[in-house]
Amino acid sequence: MKTLIKVDLNASPESQEYLHNRWHPDIPMVAMVKPGDEFRVECIDWTGSQILNDDNAKDVEVVDLSKVHYLSGPIGVEGAEPGDLLVVDILDVGVLEESAWGFTGIFAKTNGGGFLTEHYPDARKACWDFHGIYTSSRHIPKVEFAGVMHPGLIGCLPSKEMLETWNTREKELYDTNPDRVPALAALPYAPTAHMGKMTGDAKDKAAAEGARTVPPREHGGNCDIKNLTKGSKVYFPVYVKDGGLSMGDIHFSQGDGEITFCGAIEMAGYLDLRVSLIKGGVAKYGVVNPIFEPSPLSPEYKRHLIFEGISVDESGKQHYLDPHVSYRMACLNAIEYMKKFGYTGEQAYAILGTAPVEGRISGIVDIPNACATLWLPTEIFDFDIRPNADGPTIKVEPGTDLAVVS
Amino acid sequence: MKTLIKVDLNASPESQEYLHNRWHPDIPMVAMVKPGDEFRVECIDWTGSQILNDDNAKDVEVVDLSKVHYLSGPIGVEGAEPGDLLVVDILDVGVLEESAWGFTGIFAKTNGGGFLTEHYPDARKACWDFHGIYTSSRHIPKVEFAGVMHPGLIGCLPSKEMLETWNTREKELYDTNPDRVPALAALPYAPTAHMGKMTGDAKDKAAAEGARTVPPREHGGNCDIKNLTKGSKVYFPVYVKDGGLSMGDIHFSQGDGEITFCGAIEMAGYLDLRVSLIKGGVAKYGVVNPIFEPSPLSPEYKRHLIFEGISVDESGKQHYLDPHVSYRMACLNAIEYMKKFGYTGEQAYAILGTAPVEGRISGIVDIPNACATLWLPTEIFDFDIRPNADGPTIKVEPGTDLAVVS
Amino acid sequence: MKTLIKVDLNASPESQEYLHNRWHPDIPMVAMVKPGDEFRVECIDWTGSQILNDDNAKDVEVVDLSKVHYLSGPIGVEGAEPGDLLVVDILDVGVLEESAWGFTGIFAKTNGGGFLTEHYPDARKACWDFHGIYTSSRHIPKVEFAGVMHPGLIGCLPSKEMLETWNTREKELYDTNPDRVPALAALPYAPTAHMGKMTGDAKDKAAAEGARTVPPREHGGNCDIKNLTKGSKVYFPVYVKDGGLSMGDIHFSQGDGEITFCGAIEMAGYLDLRVSLIKGGVAKYGVVNPIFEPSPLSPEYKRHLIFEGISVDESGKQHYLDPHVSYRMACLNAIEYMKKFGYTGEQAYAILGTAPVEGRISGIVDIPNACATLWLPTEIFDFDIRPNADGPTIKVEPGTDLAVVS
Amino acid sequence: MKTLIKVDLNASPESQEYLHNRWHPDIPMVAMVKPGDEFRVECIDWTGSQILNDDNAKDVEVVDLSKVHYLSGPIGVEGAEPGDLLVVDILDVGVLEESAWGFTGIFAKTNGGGFLTEHYPDARKACWDFHGIYTSSRHIPKVEFAGVMHPGLIGCLPSKEMLETWNTREKELYDTNPDRVPALAALPYAPTAHMGKMTGDAKDKAAAEGARTVPPREHGGNCDIKNLTKGSKVYFPVYVKDGGLSMGDIHFSQGDGEITFCGAIEMAGYLDLRVSLIKGGVAKYGVVNPIFEPSPLSPEYKRHLIFEGISVDESGKQHYLDPHVSYRMACLNAIEYMKKFGYTGEQAYAILGTAPVEGRISGIVDIPNACATLWLPTEIFDFDIRPNADGPTIKVEPGTDLAVVS
Repeated sequence: MKTLIKVDLNASPESQEYLHNRWHPDIPMVAMVKPGDEFRVECIDWTGSQILNDDNAKDVEVVDLSKVHYLSGPIGVEGAEPGDLLVVDILDVGVLEESAWGFTGIFAKTNGGGFLTEHYPDARKACWDFHGIYTSSRHIPKVEFAGVMHPGLIGCLPSKEMLETWNTREKELYDTNPDRVPALAALPYAPTAHMGKMTGDAKDKAAAEGARTVPPREHGGNCDIKNLTKGSKVYFPVYVKDGGLSMGDIHFSQGDGEITFCGAIEMAGYLDLRVSLIKGGVAKYGVVNPIFEPSPLSPEYKRHLIFEGISVDESGKQHYLDPHVSYRMACLNAIEYMKKFGYTGEQAYAILGTAPVEGRISGIVDIPNACATLWLPTEIFDFDIRPNADGPTIKVEPGTDLAVVS
Repeated sequence: MKTLIKVDLNASPESQEYLHNRWHPDIPMVAMVKPGDEFRVECIDWTGSQILNDDNAKDVEVVDLSKVHYLSGPIGVEGAEPGDLLVVDILDVGVLEESAWGFTGIFAKTNGGGFLTEHYPDARKACWDFHGIYTSSRHIPKVEFAGVMHPGLIGCLPSKEMLETWNTREKELYDTNPDRVPALAALPYAPTAHMGKMTGDAKDKAAAEGARTVPPREHGGNCDIKNLTKGSKVYFPVYVKDGGLSMGDIHFSQGDGEITFCGAIEMAGYLDLRVSLIKGGVAKYGVVNPIFEPSPLSPEYKRHLIFEGISVDESGKQHYLDPHVSYRMACLNAIEYMKKFGYTGEQAYAILGTAPVEGRISGIVDIPNACATLWLPTEIFDFDIRPNADGPTIKVEPGTDLAVVS
Repeated sequence: MKTLIKVDLNASPESQEYLHNRWHPDIPMVAMVKPGDEFRVECIDWTGSQILNDDNAKDVEVVDLSKVHYLSGPIGVEGAEPGDLLVVDILDVGVLEESAWGFTGIFAKTNGGGFLTEHYPDARKACWDFHGIYTSSRHIPKVEFAGVMHPGLIGCLPSKEMLETWNTREKELYDTNPDRVPALAALPYAPTAHMGKMTGDAKDKAAAEGARTVPPREHGGNCDIKNLTKGSKVYFPVYVKDGGLSMGDIHFSQGDGEITFCGAIEMAGYLDLRVSLIKGGVAKYGVVNPIFEPSPLSPEYKRHLIFEGISVDESGKQHYLDPHVSYRMACLNAIEYMKKFGYTGEQAYAILGTAPVEGRISGIVDIPNACATLWLPTEIFDFDIRPNADGPTIKVEPGTDLAVVS
Repeated sequence: MKTLIKVDLNASPESQEYLHNRWHPDIPMVAMVKPGDEFRVECIDWTGSQILNDDNAKDVEVVDLSKVHYLSGPIGVEGAEPGDLLVVDILDVGVLEESAWGFTGIFAKTNGGGFLTEHYPDARKACWDFHGIYTSSRHIPKVEFAGVMHPGLIGCLPSKEMLETWNTREKELYDTNPDRVPALAALPYAPTAHMGKMTGDAKDKAAAEGARTVPPREHGGNCDIKNLTKGSKVYFPVYVKDGGLSMGDIHFSQGDGEITFCGAIEMAGYLDLRVSLIKGGVAKYGVVNPIFEPSPLSPEYKRHLIFEGISVDESGKQHYLDPHVSYRMACLNAIEYMKKFGYTGEQAYAILGTAPVEGRISGIVDIPNACATLWLPTEIFDFDIRPNADGPTIKVEPGTDLAVVS
C-alpha cells in the first residue's frame, strides 16, 4: 500500500504541512490521487501528542482544545467537482508500530466537559495497551475487548458558502449564552489554527474564518461513528474542486455517543483508502449528510445487558421527548449497576465510552418520554456480570482507578 | 402452554375485565402464578379494534386515543414484594390465528401526531399481511421482511407513591403549554378509563388518578423497544405486593423510535412467559428502570445503508447536542433517498417506522452537534437500493400508496 | 394460513390417506395448489407415534423402522413439469398445540444404530419439553437452547427412471454385504408400505418398488439439514407432472450430522409454505440436488468450543482422507470433554445430536488426514464449560441420565 | 509487539535456522518465552517462495513438495511439560509489507493433486491482490471478499513416541498401495529436510525420521481450519519439555476443505501471539486433539447459496455414508452452477477453495447416503448470483482465466 501521507510523531504538528486543524475551502491539497487509487494515510492522535502514556491526568486537565483535531490532508481526487459523491472504501485501519497504545480522558468540566460532566467534573485518564485485535487498560481491570478501529473524523472541505452557514448558525447559538461552561459552540480561533501549507495573509484570513473541527456537520467531519471501521464504504458530498478529503482522530474503539467527550480510545494510526466518484451523486440520491455502508468485519458481541433511560432527569423533572436526557439516564443506570461489582463510577463511565456499547433511540413518540437504551456487551468482562438470584458480588477489588491529576 | 388470559376479539374491551387501560396500584390481579410457571397471555391490539383492515384511513383520523392502550393483566406472582426484581422470560410471541394481519398508522397532527408530524400532518394507514416470519403490505410495494415480534408495552403496577410522582411531573410539564397540539403529556382522564375488575366508587377514584399508558416510565411500560422479542429476558422492578404484571400493544415489527407514533405493525397476539424472582434485587443491583437481555433469535439483517443526521434543523437552526433533532434529520435524509427510487414520502416514512431499522446515538458530546445514525437494512427491498455510479432508477411505479381518509 | 393437510395424532398413520411412507411416482396428489399460494401442512412425527413421552426406552429398542418416515403429501403445484425448479419458501415451522414435546433416541445397534453405535450400542431415550423458542430435557440437566425448527425430510416425487436408479444402486451396495448390521441400505419393503390413496394391485406394485425414505437423494428427501428452518427458500428439481411435494420428520432442533440417527429432537408439527416455479430451471441452473438459501432468522450462538478430529480411528489405524472417521473422532473428543463436567457419555452424545452443533469439513486434502471440526455452542450450558487454569469441576451431579430399557 | 522471529524473504529457507520443515522432538528451540508473553512471529509462505506473482503456472507444476511446509519455530515456553495444555491467543495475523500478495494453486495430479484432481488434473495458478481487509484476483473477475487470515499450520513438537506412532501408521497405509498417484501418505524424506539448528549426525538421524508436515495430526499441525483467525484462542497438548510451538502456512483466506490442495490464498505473514499454560490440562480435560475458541472478529457473510451433495459418485455408484464423496459432489454442483454465470470450471474451483465457503456434514446417519452441504456466500460476487425466474445470464465475459503452464 502506497503511503500518501506519513506523519512524524516526534515533530510538532504545526511543523507538518500535510496536517491542518480547521475546515476552510482554501486549504491547499497536499496530494492528488485518481479514482480507483489505493493509498495509506497516517494520522497523529487528535491532540497532537498532548496526552502521555502515564498515570497523571494533568495533561488531560490542561489540554489545549483550541488546537484539536489535527487532520491529515486535504487529499484531492482528480475529477471531483461540487455535487459529486466521493466514494471512499476504508480498506484498513491500523496502529502505528511506534505508538501502540491509546488513551481515554474524562475531561474537566471547565475544559471540555463530557456527557456526564455534572456527575464527573474532574479530569481523569485511562491508558490502554493493544494486544492485536484486543485492548485492555491498567486503569480498568477485568475488561478486555476487540477494538472496532475507525476514524472519528473524516470528510471533505466545505465550500465558502457552507463555511459561512456553519459559522453563522453556531455563532447564533453561542450568543444565546456566551458565558456558559462548557461553551455552546467552539467558534473560529485564529491563534492556534494550523492551515496546512497556507502562509502569510491568506493563512491569517483563513485562520480567522476556519471552522473548528469539533462538531459533525453536513460533510461528515467529527461524526465519531464507531462503526466506520475497516471494510466500510462511505459516500461523501463534494463541495470544492478536487474534493479535499481530510481525516484524523483515529479510535481503537468507542461506545455509541463517545460519552466521556474524549471517550474513545484515542490513538495515532493509519487508514488505507480506495476512492472513486459518483458524478452528480448529491442530487441524484438527494444526499445531505454522508451515507455509509458498514463493514462485513466487525466484532460479534451478541450478548448484552440493556439499560433503559427515559426523559425524566436526575432531579425528577419531566422533559418532552428528549433522548439526550434519556440516554444520559440510561448511562447513569448502567454505571450504578457496574458499581455493584466493584467498579468506581469513573471506571464504569470510561467503559461506556470505550467499549463497543450501543446507544439506541428506542422510542421517540410516546409523549412525553423518549426511551433510549444502552447495550452493554457482557462478553467484554472476564466475569459473569448478568443478574442472578444471589445478587452481585465484588469482582473488582478496590485499589485501581483511572489516573487523577497529581 | 397454559392460557392464563384469553381475549375475545369480538367483544368490547370494556366488557373484558382482565383488560385495563390505565396504571393504578389498586387494579386487582386477574390471575396468580408461581415463580417457575410458564403461561400464555393473549392481548388485543392497542386500540381495541378501532382500526380496520381496509383502504380508508378515516379510522386512524378519528381514533379515540383516550382509550388506549388496552393491557392484559395485571398478573400476580406469588411472593413478589416491592423491591424485588420480577424476571420475565419472553418465551414466545405470536399471532392470533383469527387475526393474522397488522396495521401502521400515520396519525393526524391534531390527533396523536408522530415524529415527523410537521412534515406529514395527515392521517394515513398501511395494512400488513403476515406470511409466517415475513410481512408485506399492499400499500408499500417491493418490501418484505422478517418480523421481530414484541410487546410494545409491559411492566408492573406502580405503587401509590410512584403514581403520584408520575402524575405530578407530567402535569407540571403539561402546564407549561396546555394548549399545545399535540399535547405535552396525556393526563389522567376518567371517562374512558377501564380499570379491570374495579367497580363503583373505588373504580371512579382510581380512574381519576390512573396514569395514562402512553409514555414509558420507571416500570418499563410503553417502551416500544423493538428488540424485546421472543427469547428475551427482562428484569422488572416490583412496586406492589404480587407485582401485577400487565402487557399489550404487540408489534409484528417496529423500527427504532417507532416514528410514525403508531409506527409499528400493530396486532393482536399472544405472549408466552416464564416468571421468577430476585428477592431484593432492586437494591442489590441498583435498578431504576428495567434491564433486559436480548434474544439469541433475532433476524440477521447485516447489510445497511446508514444515514446521518446532525442537530441542525430543517430551517438551518443550530441546536445544542439535541439527538431528537439529529434523528429527525437522519429520518428525513433516509426518506429523501428512498423517494429517488419511487416511494412516496408516506411510504418511506412507514418503512422507517416498521422495518427493523436501527436508530443510534452515535455522537453526543461534539459541541454543538449531536450525531444520530439511522440504519436501514438493504435486504428488505427486492431491488438493490445501494448507490451506484449510474444513479438511481424508479423501482416503485406510481399508483400505490398508503390509504388516505375517504 | 389455510391448512391444506390436517393430521390426526390419535388415528393410525395408515388410516390417513394424505400420508405416505415410500417414494414412488404413482402416489396420487392429495391436494393441488397454484404458484403464489401460501398454505399450512401438518405432519406427524417420523415414527407415527411409536415413541412415547415417558422414561422407558423400550419403544426405541423395538421401533418398527420399516414404517418410517410418514410424510404429508404429495402436494401438486399447477403447471409444474419435469425439469422445472419448484421454489418453496418455508414461511414458518411450528409445534402442534396438542403435542408440545419431542424425543431423541439413541437407537440400538441391532435396530437402526447411529454414528457412534459401536460405542453406544444400546437403546436410550431423552424427552424434551418446549418452552416457546427454547427446549430442555429432564434427562439432560443444565442445557437449554433455542431450537432451529426444520423439516428433516422434504422433496418432490421421483420419476420412474430416477426411482429405478435409486433402487438399483442401493441394491448393489446392499449386496456387497447383505448380512451387515446395521444394513448397508434399506431396500423396498412392501408389507409396511403406506402408499397414500393407492389401493389394490396398483398399490401392491408400487409398494414393492417404492424407495424407502431413509437416505437423502437427488430430490432432497431426508437431508436432515438443520438450517432448513423458517425463513429458508429451497429450489427443488421437479421430476413428475405437478411436482408432488411431500414432507415430514420435523425437528425442533438438530446438530450437524444428526449423529444419534434419531438424533434430532423429533416432533409432530406444521410447515407454512409458499410455492412458485422456475420453468426449465434444472437445466438453466445446472441443478442436480436441491439448492437453498438460509433464513435471516436463526439463533445466534456465536461462542463455541471447537473440537478437531482426524482420520485416525479409535484403534490408531490410519485412514485416507476420510471425514467420516474424522468427524466421529471429533465427536468422541467432545464427548470425553463433556464427561469431565459430569455428563454421562449418553447425555453428551445426545447433546451433540440435538443442540445447534456445527460439523465442518475443515481440511480434506492434506494427505492422509482429513480434518473435521465440531463446533459446540458454549452458551447452551448454564455454566461456563470453557477450559481454565484450575481444571474442570463437576457441574452435573450424578443421578440423571437418558431413559434406559426397562 | 516484540518480534521473536524475523524472516528474510530474500534468503533461502535452508539458510534460516529458525525455520524447519519436519516434525521431530529433537529440533532445538529457537527462542524461549514466558507464560503471559506477547510476541510476533514472522513466517514465509509454505513453499519458501517457490511460487511467483506472475501469469505462468509452471512453478506450480514443478513445485518441490518435499520441501514444504516451512515453519517458524520451535518456540519454547518456560515451564511447559508434557501433559500440559499450551494456551495460545492468536492476537493478530497480518501481511508482511514487502510481500502483499498471495497465490492459489491447482496442483497437477502428478504433483500434489487436490480434492477434484480427477476433474482438474492440470496445474493452474491464481494470484491475489490484497486491499486492506479485502482481496481480489486478476485471474477471477467479479469476486472480492474480506479475508479470514489464519495460520494453516500450527502445533507443538511431537514426543519420540508420538512420532513413531505417526510414522508407523502412515507407512502402513502407504504400503497398501505404494504406487498410487497421488501417494497415500508423505513419508519421511531426508534429502530436503530442514531441521532448524540441527547439524551433523544428529540432524541426519532426525531428518530420516522427521514426520512430514502435510497432514494434520494429534498436535494440530496442518489443520487448515479457516476460522483460526485473529482473536482465536487455542489449547494445544504439550508433548516435550518447553512445548516447542511452530507455525506457518499463513492463509489470507480459505474455504472449508481447502479443496484445491493449495486451495487457500497462500502468503508470507506474521502472527502475534500470547501464551499461557494449563498445567496437566491434557488429562484434566481429556484432550486428544487441540481445542479452540473462535474469534469475535470474523467476516459476517450471512447470505448463502447452499449446495447439497450425497454419497453417490460421478459414475452413479452408491457409497456408504461417505462424506468425502458427498462433499465432492456438493463442490461439483456448486461449480456447475457458477459456470452458468460465465466462470470457467477452474475459476469456480478456485473460488470454492479460497472464499469463506463453509463445508458442513449435514447428515451422516441416513443409510446409505451422507449429506454434505457447501455454503457459498453470495455477497462476495458483484452481481446477484441467486436463482430467479428468468434464468442466469453471463456475468463473467470469456477471456480471463487462471494462469496455465506456458
